[in-house]
Amino acid sequence: MIIVLRSGATQEQIDDVVKRLEKLGFGAHVSQGVERTIIGAIGDERRVNLEEKIGVLPFVEKVIPVLAPYRLTSREFREADTTVKVGDVEIGMGKFVLIAGPCSVESEEQIVETALRIKEAGAKILRGGAFKPRTSPYSFQGLAEEGLKFLAKAREVSGLPIVTEALGVEELPLVAEYADMIQIGARNMQNFRLLEAAGRLHKPVLLKRGMMNTVEELLMSAEYILAQGNHQVVLCERGIRTFEPSTRNTLDLSCIPLVKMQSHLPILADPSHGTGRSDLVETMSLAALAAGADGVIVEVHPNPVEALSDGPQSLTPEQFYHLVREIKKLAVVMEKEV
Amino acid sequence: MIIVLRSGATQEQIDDVVKRLEKLGFGAHVSQGVERTIIGAIGDERRVNLEEKIGVLPFVEKVIPVLAPYRLTSREFREADTTVKVGDVEIGMGKFVLIAGPCSVESEEQIVETALRIKEAGAKILRGGAFKPRTSPYSFQGLAEEGLKFLAKAREVSGLPIVTEALGVEELPLVAEYADMIQIGARNMQNFRLLEAAGRLHKPVLLKRGMMNTVEELLMSAEYILAQGNHQVVLCERGIRTFEPSTRNTLDLSCIPLVKMQSHLPILADPSHGTGRSDLVETMSLAALAAGADGVIVEVHPNPVEALSDGPQSLTPEQFYHLVREIKKLAVVMEKEV
Amino acid sequence: MIIVLRSGATQEQIDDVVKRLEKLGFGAHVSQGVERTIIGAIGDERRVNLEEKIGVLPFVEKVIPVLAPYRLTSREFREADTTVKVGDVEIGMGKFVLIAGPCSVESEEQIVETALRIKEAGAKILRGGAFKPRTSPYSFQGLAEEGLKFLAKAREVSGLPIVTEALGVEELPLVAEYADMIQIGARNMQNFRLLEAAGRLHKPVLLKRGMMNTVEELLMSAEYILAQGNHQVVLCERGIRTFEPSTRNTLDLSCIPLVKMQSHLPILADPSHGTGRSDLVETMSLAALAAGADGVIVEVHPNPVEALSDGPQSLTPEQFYHLVREIKKLAVVMEKEV
Amino acid sequence: MIIVLRSGATQEQIDDVVKRLEKLGFGAHVSQGVERTIIGAIGDERRVNLEEKIGVLPFVEKVIPVLAPYRLTSREFREADTTVKVGDVEIGMGKFVLIAGPCSVESEEQIVETALRIKEAGAKILRGGAFKPRTSPYSFQGLAEEGLKFLAKAREVSGLPIVTEALGVEELPLVAEYADMIQIGARNMQNFRLLEAAGRLHKPVLLKRGMMNTVEELLMSAEYILAQGNHQVVLCERGIRTFEPSTRNTLDLSCIPLVKMQSHLPILADPSHGTGRSDLVETMSLAALAAGADGVIVEVHPNPVEALSDGPQSLTPEQFYHLVREIKKLAVVMEKEV
Repeated sequence: MIIVLRSGATQEQIDDVVKRLEKLGFGAHVSQGVERTIIGAIGDERRVNLEEKIGVLPFVEKVIPVLAPYRLTSREFREADTTVKVGDVEIGMGKFVLIAGPCSVESEEQIVETALRIKEAGAKILRGGAFKPRTSPYSFQGLAEEGLKFLAKAREVSGLPIVTEALGVEELPLVAEYADMIQIGARNMQNFRLLEAAGRLHKPVLLKRGMMNTVEELLMSAEYILAQGNHQVVLCERGIRTFEPSTRNTLDLSCIPLVKMQSHLPILADPSHGTGRSDLVETMSLAALAAGADGVIVEVHPNPVEALSDGPQSLTPEQFYHLVREIKKLAVVMEKEV
Repeated sequence: MIIVLRSGATQEQIDDVVKRLEKLGFGAHVSQGVERTIIGAIGDERRVNLEEKIGVLPFVEKVIPVLAPYRLTSREFREADTTVKVGDVEIGMGKFVLIAGPCSVESEEQIVETALRIKEAGAKILRGGAFKPRTSPYSFQGLAEEGLKFLAKAREVSGLPIVTEALGVEELPLVAEYADMIQIGARNMQNFRLLEAAGRLHKPVLLKRGMMNTVEELLMSAEYILAQGNHQVVLCERGIRTFEPSTRNTLDLSCIPLVKMQSHLPILADPSHGTGRSDLVETMSLAALAAGADGVIVEVHPNPVEALSDGPQSLTPEQFYHLVREIKKLAVVMEKEV
Repeated sequence: MIIVLRSGATQEQIDDVVKRLEKLGFGAHVSQGVERTIIGAIGDERRVNLEEKIGVLPFVEKVIPVLAPYRLTSREFREADTTVKVGDVEIGMGKFVLIAGPCSVESEEQIVETALRIKEAGAKILRGGAFKPRTSPYSFQGLAEEGLKFLAKAREVSGLPIVTEALGVEELPLVAEYADMIQIGARNMQNFRLLEAAGRLHKPVLLKRGMMNTVEELLMSAEYILAQGNHQVVLCERGIRTFEPSTRNTLDLSCIPLVKMQSHLPILADPSHGTGRSDLVETMSLAALAAGADGVIVEVHPNPVEALSDGPQSLTPEQFYHLVREIKKLAVVMEKEV
Repeated sequence: MIIVLRSGATQEQIDDVVKRLEKLGFGAHVSQGVERTIIGAIGDERRVNLEEKIGVLPFVEKVIPVLAPYRLTSREFREADTTVKVGDVEIGMGKFVLIAGPCSVESEEQIVETALRIKEAGAKILRGGAFKPRTSPYSFQGLAEEGLKFLAKAREVSGLPIVTEALGVEELPLVAEYADMIQIGARNMQNFRLLEAAGRLHKPVLLKRGMMNTVEELLMSAEYILAQGNHQVVLCERGIRTFEPSTRNTLDLSCIPLVKMQSHLPILADPSHGTGRSDLVETMSLAALAAGADGVIVEVHPNPVEALSDGPQSLTPEQFYHLVREIKKLAVVMEKEV
């Protein structure tokens, strides 16, 4: 932590900061400049929130952190890439995983048919929502447990493991009973109770970046899960909110190499939510692969026109076949196994 | 709902849309322009999600909603301003309520002292967190039930009703047992399970706008609570995320008159979180009053330097006295009772 | 400037930085922490761009500036508030100036009528565009010199000084010949050639904040003008771009007290462009006054329905009368003279 | 254009709108719904700004455009991709062009050396700034004409055509005399005078997207140039401003396929400014290629540590070699010629 004092700070004030730092277990290194005095706090700054303890002093101009605030999630904690296993499917380590399926589970027929068709195309994991987070209380909210049962049926028939979302702590045990991987959605990325509860599970977790959250906050939310003992976390970039109205969100692909530098956890991209437009999904999937993502999660619906939710961003199975074909060509160059 | 077809749409495609609309219970009004055909869907568009049902057709360019998607929250549903009662304190209707207190409850002494001092200054409701949403799992997470007990003690001593946050559905009954008003924080504005649970309570709810949520989404989240039967909702603008780094968030004061036009619910401003800087809190409180807010919620700590969280944005009791004095002068002109 | 070295920096690398700093005329203060070494650069960091000189070294993690990069614009350079005189009208120093007029000058009748009516209401300066910055090359671009002549006529008839925009360096002399104050618009806030040219004039300049620019960048753009010798600069907050779609921009009122702390220059608010909605202009003008602004600039058109540009955000003269009445009431409390 | 009337609009008001539309040369198609009346304006809406003419009526709720506001730039105007020739180098049409060079021209040696090294690596066009747009008036502003001369020398020695920025209309003739392609920078994307002047040149123009401008505004700014007769325009995505602090800007790669759908103009990506970090440039260049870009423009400096500007985002020639090697591998799959 670096503490910058206001212009004109007195020796007494400098001493005050030094004493406070020492009381908190930090060494202090004072550096008197022409216009400002700067004090370096020496010690593990992740242990104590100096921004709050020291930044509040009236003669302190600012407190600047030096270290990232996460530990278990960081590359410094674990240098090698983490591989997360969902059923028999590995995410990470030279793989590029394709996760596909409808926004919502609508019926047994719909989800089973989707599962078979995406499997045939090359997908490795089936997605589908049984509990849906909807902006409006009047929109379709998902089939709940019935939807989970249909998903289980689709797994049985297709052999694909399934990932599905839990919206709250109460429904987590039920979802965990059926799912091979639990999704925590963008709107819940800072639902700390849900993160903690997911951290106590022995199931892989797919953690989506909130549309309002920084890369550092995404890693901090992952830290909540890891800190409870569950290290099987896969991150997912799904678009952030900006002023641009042509796309539903702005898919921030720089997030992918950034996370790769700072963390050992795998990271996927979700071009369906990231753009909100089916006509951009294939192109942005290719871009995500080139950016180093460990996979994509895309919405596929056997009949988008009849979909109960998110139709405009869903691919048809035919469009998904095309996407997989293009991905496979690119994956050879990127040295990834699809 | 207005449906814009792609350039070159055929008569068959037009008929297809009309038939689909009719099947969904809508009338259709076709308008063929020089370059585009437009179809007006006649009926209550809040009943069916036409954006999903029709927008997905390949020959449809876009679907444009005409009505706002909320009902119970809207001025059209209820023309008169709603007044929400917290203990004996009324929010709304010509009042300007001052809510104050520390970010976190830290000890019985701290919260009792704060309560007495803010009461003396003119505050009507005490705030303080017992369960804290923190970006890092290693930051102070609040005193939990012990904190609620200290809050209850402060109410007993000062006579001020209390508002405090619940982070999850599980802790809601406990928080409701102690609090006069339940806060749903910015990060939980789209935690739909928590909104639904709060909607089943018989307690006032303080709903904060998420830092990346639109005004319309704020009203939709309020709708979740009202739809469950709880109409005692107070909204709160607390700053949105923008590119500007000088302030922690950008306090969007236009939100206040906008909400007043569209909804009957009271709305407060939170200049402490909205700016993240104690030196801006008084000025932005005055601006909020001038913008038509029904009150402000500000962080006050008897000793910000020793605060366990959010020190840099907390006022001292002395600064709060000054703020109240200025607010009172302005309130006379604004015809509001403090 | 504070230089943070990467974890594991060697003594050799530390020495390298120290030597480079010394060569650039800075002292160096080394502080070796547990995980990082930090070097304070002692000297006037506004003289040399250390971020570029030192930040580029592979073993440097980051370079953090300590001082704001502007000088002439800063409160440290000049403690007292600056007053800018436009004709006989003073901006700053306990005044709250009302500037009003149409988006575009459309005819002699229109601008003369507007001038007389806003003067009667209480406005002190007339605004109106003769050269209009339009997103589309097919939109009305303004009456050019004819518009300037109509403005001069309106000044003659009403006695109000005039402010109008120059879009480029070439038209600056012509605009300066007619106008009492030159406006540099939001889209030109970082048109550095125009800033420099305006700095060489002996006329007051109204510099609007770009919708994409930080408060610090606004002050840096003012610095461009002051650095050329023209200190008669008035700033203007006119809304920034965010994700919120209900308003054309988000009026960032925190910018007002922030600028007041950091700079001696006067600052206005433009609620017409800041919100894009005439139904929000009065409320946000009041909020701007409460936030400490030195005035507002609002769009008024004798007949908004027939306006050639920006009709939806223009007030009628009647609405402007109402606004002035409310402003005057509030100004008494804020101790400002309207 | 679709006109939505406020709830409760009278027949008289409906007739008023219809009459106004007819006077402006539009047909009107009235559609009376349960809660709102909607009027379709039939005619070429790009001819008249109905949003301003009709949107301003007090009983009109909103006016919604149906068509994009650009013409010459659109795919509807020209279906085939445009190829722009810079010297002998073609941009567009199955090519992936590499433009490289330092942020600023610093000396003859520096620019000649860079030209030779990037040419050897595979670059086709040399970039380098002689006039630099700098936030601070105290930063290095470029070598001006001397820099242009050094660029010309580098072209002579290396055979590479050159692209360099003009900051204002006045310096455009001088820059055009030396450069093979004129760059209009992000901060000048809505400097309409400069766009118009560039439109009157017979030189290719590289138009960069402003950091807070929408894709539609980018195409409108291109329209300004095309409307003056110069159709040799290459667009460039260089990152937009968002709340994310890890990167200098957020490179919006969705912009690439979006522009490709809507316009016939070529589009490049600038990962150096788009991320501000040299360690992300290669990965984001690959992602840009996969997203369909017609090339990238990257900063390369023979010695980034000594660069006078933008060092932290510049590649060394060695890093650039590596980038080209990776790009070439990917280009085979993408069926682009590097």
